[in-house]
Amino acid sequence: MYDLIVIGGGPAGLCAAIYAARKQIKTLLLSKDIGGQVSTTLGIENYLGYQFIEGPELIEKFQDQIRQFPIDQEIGRAVLRVERHNDTFDVVCEDGSSFQARTAIYAAGKRPRRLNVPGEAEFAGRGVTYCAICDGPVFAGQKVAVIGGGNSGVSATLDMVKISEHVHLVSITPLTADPVLVNQLTGAPNLTIHTGYQTRRIEGKEFVESIVVQDLKTGEERRLEVGGVLIEIGLVPNSDPVKHLLKLNQWGEVPITPGCATEVPGFFAAGDVTDVPEKQIVVAAGEGAKAALQSHRYLQRLQKQAVAV
Amino acid sequence: MYDLIVIGGGPAGLCAAIYAARKQIKTLLLSKDIGGQVSTTLGIENYLGYQFIEGPELIEKFQDQIRQFPIDQEIGRAVLRVERHNDTFDVVCEDGSSFQARTAIYAAGKRPRRLNVPGEAEFAGRGVTYCAICDGPVFAGQKVAVIGGGNSGVSATLDMVKISEHVHLVSITPLTADPVLVNQLTGAPNLTIHTGYQTRRIEGKEFVESIVVQDLKTGEERRLEVGGVLIEIGLVPNSDPVKHLLKLNQWGEVPITPGCATEVPGFFAAGDVTDVPEKQIVVAAGEGAKAALQSHRYLQRLQKQAVAV
Repeated sequence: MYDLIVIGGGPAGLCAAIYAARKQIKTLLLSKDIGGQVSTTLGIENYLGYQFIEGPELIEKFQDQIRQFPIDQEIGRAVLRVERHNDTFDVVCEDGSSFQARTAIYAAGKRPRRLNVPGEAEFAGRGVTYCAICDGPVFAGQKVAVIGGGNSGVSATLDMVKISEHVHLVSITPLTADPVLVNQLTGAPNLTIHTGYQTRRIEGKEFVESIVVQDLKTGEERRLEVGGVLIEIGLVPNSDPVKHLLKLNQWGEVPITPGCATEVPGFFAAGDVTDVPEKQIVVAAGEGAKAALQSHRYLQRLQKQAVAV
Repeated sequence: MYDLIVIGGGPAGLCAAIYAARKQIKTLLLSKDIGGQVSTTLGIENYLGYQFIEGPELIEKFQDQIRQFPIDQEIGRAVLRVERHNDTFDVVCEDGSSFQARTAIYAAGKRPRRLNVPGEAEFAGRGVTYCAICDGPVFAGQKVAVIGGGNSGVSATLDMVKISEHVHLVSITPLTADPVLVNQLTGAPNLTIHTGYQTRRIEGKEFVESIVVQDLKTGEERRLEVGGVLIEIGLVPNSDPVKHLLKLNQWGEVPITPGCATEVPGFFAAGDVTDVPEKQIVVAAGEGAKAALQSHRYLQRLQKQAVAV
């Protein structure tokens, strides 16, 4: 039985674990990985304290810091479901293991949104990727499609036009990325922009060979020959394990108070999985610190009540 | 006329300025100093990304990062009053200068609380200090009084018993510091703890020579001969310059939404001066980032409205 289980190994979870350990709370850090989205981020220029640092290097620094403290770690376990029995939280993992604590901080982050089209799951890792930054260079010299007209789609396109034979940028809507990014697309000779087009299916034999997109006005379908499909259509919160425990907002995020409390007493949440207004590394870290300090206060109140009884 | 004036040079203000600059907002950073309370903090072990760093070194890193961006800076000016005229904020400084912007982020932090007793102002810097960490070593070998029984008072006492001839710890209430700190006081041979005592006056000729404390039960006064008075009775928000602009909470803090908005449209606030539930460096940094991104959204909405008109 732990005092606190921190679920998630991104900046929110790691910062929460450090703050909890410094308050001498008996803490378990439980996560399928360490680093979360930061692991797949290249240059970071907006984490206060580092002029420039690569994502994996920043995570390495976070990990070094974690190791200073006596924090139990269960890394490599994906959480299936968080249950509440009386005053105990039971965290059940996909591998059947489970862990118990008096309080929990849910900091499970977000994951890339799927297109949900035929061929997508089949060709994942064989031409289909959700991380242009990690996998883009694999497609150097090839024709690729980037799906998504927001900031991450347009950023990926800007990277890919430099190294690909040809880039098809496919977006259902007009491009919604910041003008400063969209302007940089101008004049790329190896770029075709398809706005108002929806991706219908991904095809190939062993690897991706083409995608079929549909003109949303005319209904006409077009086949684009590509060896890579970089899907950048946003992120969804990893909130399934808690959706029966509390009410999520319309985007599937966990609503929190400014002190990271949820509607369930003793159950706190922090970072990108919550409705915090901005999703940033330094914001998630700050939220994790708040969640840990507030869970400490909660545990102190529990203790006082126990003494009073 | 700036798009944004960031008021305050602590972690909240510096992080806000970086985020604003990255959004290409025309930004002025206005502060009486750089670093805020971090400048006078010794070892920091809980800023995510640094296992251990001294306050001034961390601030140096923040400053290096600020210098990468084209941010105008007015450092050394204390803000007297923030006024709102139509859709413009007018920031008036104590030296009579003033600066205008469409939005502002108020991140002026906190300052040490005063005792408000005779002799306190007179002997400031001549035996009276509000920063045990900065000035404690000056009193090595002397008798000192530490005023305040919370975490910072007890921490200061623990530092001073190692180097002082004798330490008087004076607190109106029983000691309220964390038990882990209070326990460490046990057995110090050169320590006298006066709980239930109020400090009434500070006396001396050129420098502090004694303080007079009063037993709150009996009314009896005692004179303690000391060469130093370390006052550690908490912090108060630097909210005077905005108290006529918006309604402060009962502690004098600026109430904010989770997105760092205040009741005044276009006027945001971040960090220790606000009612954010925890006052921590990493929390303040995260709040500064949120405030900058939200002020960017606000400016975008202003721009769209202008186009629509």
